[in-house]
Amino acid sequence: MNKLLKISIVASLVLGFSSTVTAGKEPSLAEKAVKYRQAGFEVMAWNFGAMGAMVKGEMPFDAKVFADKADKVSFSSKLVMEGFEVKGSEKGYHTEAKPAVWKEWDKFKEGMDKLQEQTTKLAEIAKTATTVEEVKAQFAETGKACKSCHEDYKQD
Amino acid sequence: MNKLLKISIVASLVLGFSSTVTAGKEPSLAEKAVKYRQAGFEVMAWNFGAMGAMVKGEMPFDAKVFADKADKVSFSSKLVMEGFEVKGSEKGYHTEAKPAVWKEWDKFKEGMDKLQEQTTKLAEIAKTATTVEEVKAQFAETGKACKSCHEDYKQD
Repeated sequence: MNKLLKISIVASLVLGFSSTVTAGKEPSLAEKAVKYRQAGFEVMAWNFGAMGAMVKGEMPFDAKVFADKADKVSFSSKLVMEGFEVKGSEKGYHTEAKPAVWKEWDKFKEGMDKLQEQTTKLAEIAKTATTVEEVKAQFAETGKACKSCHEDYKQD
Repeated sequence: MNKLLKISIVASLVLGFSSTVTAGKEPSLAEKAVKYRQAGFEVMAWNFGAMGAMVKGEMPFDAKVFADKADKVSFSSKLVMEGFEVKGSEKGYHTEAKPAVWKEWDKFKEGMDKLQEQTTKLAEIAKTATTVEEVKAQFAETGKACKSCHEDYKQD
């Protein structure tokens, strides 16, 4: 467990700060961690979805918007791992993560590293791209990184 | 409605891409928008909570972790507005937003702009800060920006 994570956990335990606290019922740290990673994926999906529509030609390609969304996807891809590292977060709060995440931790982590690499690369390319052709290949690579992990580690 | 938003909406309509899609039940764009803004706030809260524990002395101040979390808070504060701009998102999916958000739109927007300014400033200060004393005042200012909007626009 890395230092940053440990500090997050301590902080969360101490403070119990969450936007999702409902009166009289404080969610556990594990529940909060599930919500946190789900939030990260939610941010990713919203933005990646719009990028996909541009890549598929379902809407006009706007380089500035595409780059902005690529940046948001890249940023959110770096958030989610922290939520999986919290002990007990393999259960509860409607997690869609398969138990294989924790059983095959190293392989899962490899997949998440790959995702971060791909989203970072996509954001870099998008920064200077002026046509959809320039981003298509890397968008597809990033999509593969998503899909690969979903197949192995996400329940339908 | 700005261009970026319009594009997001079109993309979402066209693609219907979401991590939260459940079999046979596709959430509406408004529902997705509520989830998106909630996700942004979730990311903010998790990270701001840990920063708060450091500021209060409930855990040791780690400048690097604090700066990393300040960056995440700043980034997520820039995401959420898009989720409020989607028509119909004043209802549904357990929104905690009060109707006043849309009734007092300009005032609400001012508050959100203020939040972004304060989180950006906090992230800037945190980048070079080496002691908790250096971040305390701006952390408090940022907290006030959160609280002010919560009081007026968030249901308990």
